[in-house]
Amino acid sequence: MDAVGDARRGPIPEATVSRLPLYLRSLVGIAADGVPTVSSEDLGRVAGVNAAKVRKDLSYLGSYGTRGVGYDVEFLIFEMSRELGLTSERAVIIAGAGNLGHALANYRGFTDRGFPVAGFIDTDPGKMGSVISGVRVHNTSDLPDLVADRPGCIGIVATPAAVAQDAVDRFVEAGITSILNFAPSVVNAPDGVNVRQVDLALELQILSFYAQRTDADLLSDLEAQA
Amino acid sequence: MDAVGDARRGPIPEATVSRLPLYLRSLVGIAADGVPTVSSEDLGRVAGVNAAKVRKDLSYLGSYGTRGVGYDVEFLIFEMSRELGLTSERAVIIAGAGNLGHALANYRGFTDRGFPVAGFIDTDPGKMGSVISGVRVHNTSDLPDLVADRPGCIGIVATPAAVAQDAVDRFVEAGITSILNFAPSVVNAPDGVNVRQVDLALELQILSFYAQRTDADLLSDLEAQA
Repeated sequence: MDAVGDARRGPIPEATVSRLPLYLRSLVGIAADGVPTVSSEDLGRVAGVNAAKVRKDLSYLGSYGTRGVGYDVEFLIFEMSRELGLTSERAVIIAGAGNLGHALANYRGFTDRGFPVAGFIDTDPGKMGSVISGVRVHNTSDLPDLVADRPGCIGIVATPAAVAQDAVDRFVEAGITSILNFAPSVVNAPDGVNVRQVDLALELQILSFYAQRTDADLLSDLEAQA
Repeated sequence: MDAVGDARRGPIPEATVSRLPLYLRSLVGIAADGVPTVSSEDLGRVAGVNAAKVRKDLSYLGSYGTRGVGYDVEFLIFEMSRELGLTSERAVIIAGAGNLGHALANYRGFTDRGFPVAGFIDTDPGKMGSVISGVRVHNTSDLPDLVADRPGCIGIVATPAAVAQDAVDRFVEAGITSILNFAPSVVNAPDGVNVRQVDLALELQILSFYAQRTDADLLSDLEAQA
């Protein structure tokens, strides 16, 4: 997807959009420490982004900070939440009432941040009507009604990989245009539907990179001592 | 963390390391389609990275491609896997045998990519000794033995947020130096321990950004028609 247009300003590049949640999480932590203003250097340090890039990213939001003072933390949180569409709730519907689905429905990070879980859909007749973590399991035939009651809701795929595409197809048929796929398989959707892939093993691979270097350092230290 | 040194070449920047798993996943998909060589443009399109950055990133690995031909896909997969330390298995131990722990132990993306799950640790006496998805639940007192048998293993925190720091402390005491935290809370670890945070709501926020823009476009289309 290309950069997204906005009537008030120029387009916000996709890479900047991807960093907004990192900034927001960092700012919430900074605010919790009672810090009223933050420099681009300090925000960058917490978010893991260099200061020049922080300033550039925030300028796309129309935030320029005050020289020698920095950015107002609470105002930046408000602006960023509005930009991310987090000032009103947006429901999520989870396809797949297995362990991953349960874990996501329980995940404090969803409900706390304005993404209430409206329901599960599942194809297992044995699960229909049961309530898991306060969330009801529906038949896939209920999906159109669930979606109609929650305009703009997001579909989450938490099924086994083999049926992830089926879940996406059902979401799309029901009119959902934003889908998050947790299953480890590539899925397709028509134009106009935004699918994002979460890869739970991605961070493991990054850790592995650094761990391998630590192993090698330890080994060469041992060899140097021998 | 700063860039990581390597005896053969200059340091690889952290941002490049973060993109290696994306390239690897993209290359595996390209190889599955039977494509033998790939240009930086095509690899970049699949991975969502611009072509100049792809070339720069691959140059850190010592890969320069052939003008007019591109990069050999299988060789790049091999090189990248070696770079990420994925050519040998690295065990993971999961703290927390709840829904998220089960889901991770079942996640095909871990075992398929060389991260076998060696065991759960949990503080609930009722779960001790039980086997979930083929993985045994251990008491935390077994942790030092589990780690000793698996040098370089990675600890995964899949506990409730309130006890995530306890889990990290136990991993560190047992000698684990690479930790992946799935709990939605910030945890601390001493120097020399690499902790990475997975935020399951991050991609939801990015989807929300784009969904909000789609909502606004639909609204303005309706207004224009009225």
